[in-house]
Amino acid sequence: MAKEIVSRSENYSQWYNDLVVKADLAENSAVRGCMVIKPYGYAIWEKIQAQLDKMFKDTGHVNAYFPLFIPKSFFSKEASHVEGFAKECAVVTHYRLKNSPDGKGVIVDETAKLEEELIVRPTSETIIWNTYKGWIQSYRDLPILINQWANVVRWEMRTRLFLRTAEFLWQEGHTAHATSEEAIEETKKMLDIYAEFAENYMGIPVLKGRKSPNERFAGAIDTYCIEALMQDGKALQAGTSHFLGQNFAKAFDVKFLNQEGKLDFVWATSWGVSTRLMGALIMAHSDDNGLVLPPKLAPIQVVIIPIYKGKEQLGDVAVKAEEIKKELLKRGISVKYDDRDTHKPGFKFAEYELKGVPVRLALGQRDIENNTIEVARRDTLEKVTVPINDVVNYIATLLDEIQENIYKKAFDFRQKNTIEVNTWDQFLEAIEKGGFIAAHWDGTTETEEKIKELTKATIRCIPLDSGFEKGNCVYSGKSSDQRVIFARAY
Amino acid sequence: MAKEIVSRSENYSQWYNDLVVKADLAENSAVRGCMVIKPYGYAIWEKIQAQLDKMFKDTGHVNAYFPLFIPKSFFSKEASHVEGFAKECAVVTHYRLKNSPDGKGVIVDETAKLEEELIVRPTSETIIWNTYKGWIQSYRDLPILINQWANVVRWEMRTRLFLRTAEFLWQEGHTAHATSEEAIEETKKMLDIYAEFAENYMGIPVLKGRKSPNERFAGAIDTYCIEALMQDGKALQAGTSHFLGQNFAKAFDVKFLNQEGKLDFVWATSWGVSTRLMGALIMAHSDDNGLVLPPKLAPIQVVIIPIYKGKEQLGDVAVKAEEIKKELLKRGISVKYDDRDTHKPGFKFAEYELKGVPVRLALGQRDIENNTIEVARRDTLEKVTVPINDVVNYIATLLDEIQENIYKKAFDFRQKNTIEVNTWDQFLEAIEKGGFIAAHWDGTTETEEKIKELTKATIRCIPLDSGFEKGNCVYSGKSSDQRVIFARAY
Repeated sequence: MAKEIVSRSENYSQWYNDLVVKADLAENSAVRGCMVIKPYGYAIWEKIQAQLDKMFKDTGHVNAYFPLFIPKSFFSKEASHVEGFAKECAVVTHYRLKNSPDGKGVIVDETAKLEEELIVRPTSETIIWNTYKGWIQSYRDLPILINQWANVVRWEMRTRLFLRTAEFLWQEGHTAHATSEEAIEETKKMLDIYAEFAENYMGIPVLKGRKSPNERFAGAIDTYCIEALMQDGKALQAGTSHFLGQNFAKAFDVKFLNQEGKLDFVWATSWGVSTRLMGALIMAHSDDNGLVLPPKLAPIQVVIIPIYKGKEQLGDVAVKAEEIKKELLKRGISVKYDDRDTHKPGFKFAEYELKGVPVRLALGQRDIENNTIEVARRDTLEKVTVPINDVVNYIATLLDEIQENIYKKAFDFRQKNTIEVNTWDQFLEAIEKGGFIAAHWDGTTETEEKIKELTKATIRCIPLDSGFEKGNCVYSGKSSDQRVIFARAY
Repeated sequence: MAKEIVSRSENYSQWYNDLVVKADLAENSAVRGCMVIKPYGYAIWEKIQAQLDKMFKDTGHVNAYFPLFIPKSFFSKEASHVEGFAKECAVVTHYRLKNSPDGKGVIVDETAKLEEELIVRPTSETIIWNTYKGWIQSYRDLPILINQWANVVRWEMRTRLFLRTAEFLWQEGHTAHATSEEAIEETKKMLDIYAEFAENYMGIPVLKGRKSPNERFAGAIDTYCIEALMQDGKALQAGTSHFLGQNFAKAFDVKFLNQEGKLDFVWATSWGVSTRLMGALIMAHSDDNGLVLPPKLAPIQVVIIPIYKGKEQLGDVAVKAEEIKKELLKRGISVKYDDRDTHKPGFKFAEYELKGVPVRLALGQRDIENNTIEVARRDTLEKVTVPINDVVNYIATLLDEIQENIYKKAFDFRQKNTIEVNTWDQFLEAIEKGGFIAAHWDGTTETEEKIKELTKATIRCIPLDSGFEKGNCVYSGKSSDQRVIFARAY
């Protein structure tokens, strides 16, 4: 099976698509730009959801649900928001179909036209702030710390599975605060949670930073983001957290009585990650044999494959395999014992390699006689033979080791592919190689757009943890106080 | 707070609506027929989801995700399905807005008209079976046991929070099988799971049965359901499980090579429950003081309210309260310690009564001196004083007792309100009283519709567990082999 995947060096983009489809993660649907997330892909998404949901709740957030549809007029209330979101979207204009007069199928019933069109939500700030208006009177009603797990629709013209689809799944946090400081603190707190999740669970090192004004969320005062580097040297924005100031409170007239007894507009944040994370996960670690999954997000952490000739042999092997499975489950390790007799071991090996199962055990009659078992790890493709009695402890340690190794490999790759450049020639050379480019920028949108036009590189972020450094803009030569990160991006 | 709720006897319908809104479960949104599910309501839904999801997975099902949009033409492929679903629905006709020429807001861009309209899914059989066509070639690919958690839209003209909304949340299982027998077995298995969930978790006794042909799901060969009785004597359909035969496989041309090497159409089931269950949960148990929640689905099982005068007193009480909270948490019992000093104890008592928290503890300085604590249970409103050292064990037992008592109360109510009638006069009298009416029916749609026209009563189900009994139809007098259940319904 694995052979059907194009190699990364041959065609990276095709490799990604092959992987998503062949590893049973997702496929294109009959509806343009919308994907079907298949059970194996969805199981990974469920792991992502469960962990993030826990982290949100541990920091005081609660879930709620707001309508799928947003009245068209809501979008016009926040001037920059409408420019960013209300253009390419799915518009509901009618609420009824009727039988076609020619008897062939159904047609739209023109008498059932909505007075005001409804937009399928591309993001929910407007409907949520319209709702918050009814919930907030005084500082006692604040903060509101709400998250929503939902589907959203943005009518993208060029789509790619997980990375850019017309419909996608995500979570969107929408919080309301009494002060600017508290809202900014929340914005940063959620960015930290996203970074922690990306690094400790997905095994992907990320840069934390702020977006340039040009790349800000439509309606935000400030947009923070985490940026990851993929194996082809392109950047991927993996999550964003926005400080919205009082923009939406003003647009929807949400005022509160503060502790001094004065009316003020409420301060807001919003933050989100989506099924795009699946794309990052796939591209950051996988190889030409298929997926490589970090153990913490793998739906199956260990697969046991019996090697046998006759059914008699399977008997012994099956007993031992079930025993190991039981012990692993006791340790909270997920295991699949694959004793299908419709497929040969070699076929199964390739299948689980393709699907990125972190650890594979192969167990045959001879192993039982020798009291040994073969353990193969997916990340390095190494195989070792270990005493069968030690195998459970061995695996528990190995899973941690794999999780760390995957992160380390991605971290080393990023280190090797992050370069400081100081001249325009160096910039042009570096951008062709790919990777993160740390360069001085004069802070103007004009220069940013000129660089994008010439090189397709965008400012991924203004890093939070790099300090003041005097320099000259790599393009205009004007003075600059900090390096920013440029890259071509997904 | 609780005082603001109209009593059941005064206006049952208003009581329900007051309860949903005042207990912070949900509210109407700015979009006609769509609700906002508030954090407390959503927390109950999350508990429902988590338990059902576990039961589905324990029986071999996996989750996946299919597109929100369905091409219009898909609905016409299954003749009866289109009649049932493609009429009242949200239709997407355009994919872009543009600035209005008058500068006021945005308007639909008429140049961005879809070639084929998209329907916001009212249910997903069509898009899923169109997808399954690509997944199924041989009996080795079967069964497919997939569930989806999703939002769906049906353009209802008269809506009520949770019970009937234009958009609602649900799960829809869609399975594919090699034989009719296996599909029927699956249909019944899922009905059993729904019944088990309703009775053991929601505390609601349900009748399991089959729908009459008239009430079947559009596209099904047979529809099974669970029916619950609400306190006003009206029935509520709480879940359905459909045997779809080969109808959708034929509509979407999904064939497989069976074990004999012959091509055959695939057999299907679908089954679902929705946020409507929230309506059932609220109406089945609650009283004029507010919600009554079964402990197994209560987001907060125990609330601790400190009774104190000075801050000095709170010190002692707080230490003890935190100690009890910690012990309860250790036992897996969810607890909230409410030490807000902005509200008096009496206000808090009313608030948690309204919100249906199963157990309330009140703890003051005098209790600490006496080594006692006051325990109030929400279902019976009884209060007892127990030794403080026993309180954790006491509560663990009490929660089970409350769960059982809530079920028993609902069961007794249903017993008292289920009546066998044998004449039309008895039927007319009984239907005015409300409740389940067990009566003979001649099996014709004509009689069923006539009875509905005259009394607004429908056949809720043909019970699975009542056996053969010779009789005469309560309306037509024609012969009948079994009693069926009539009621007015939500």
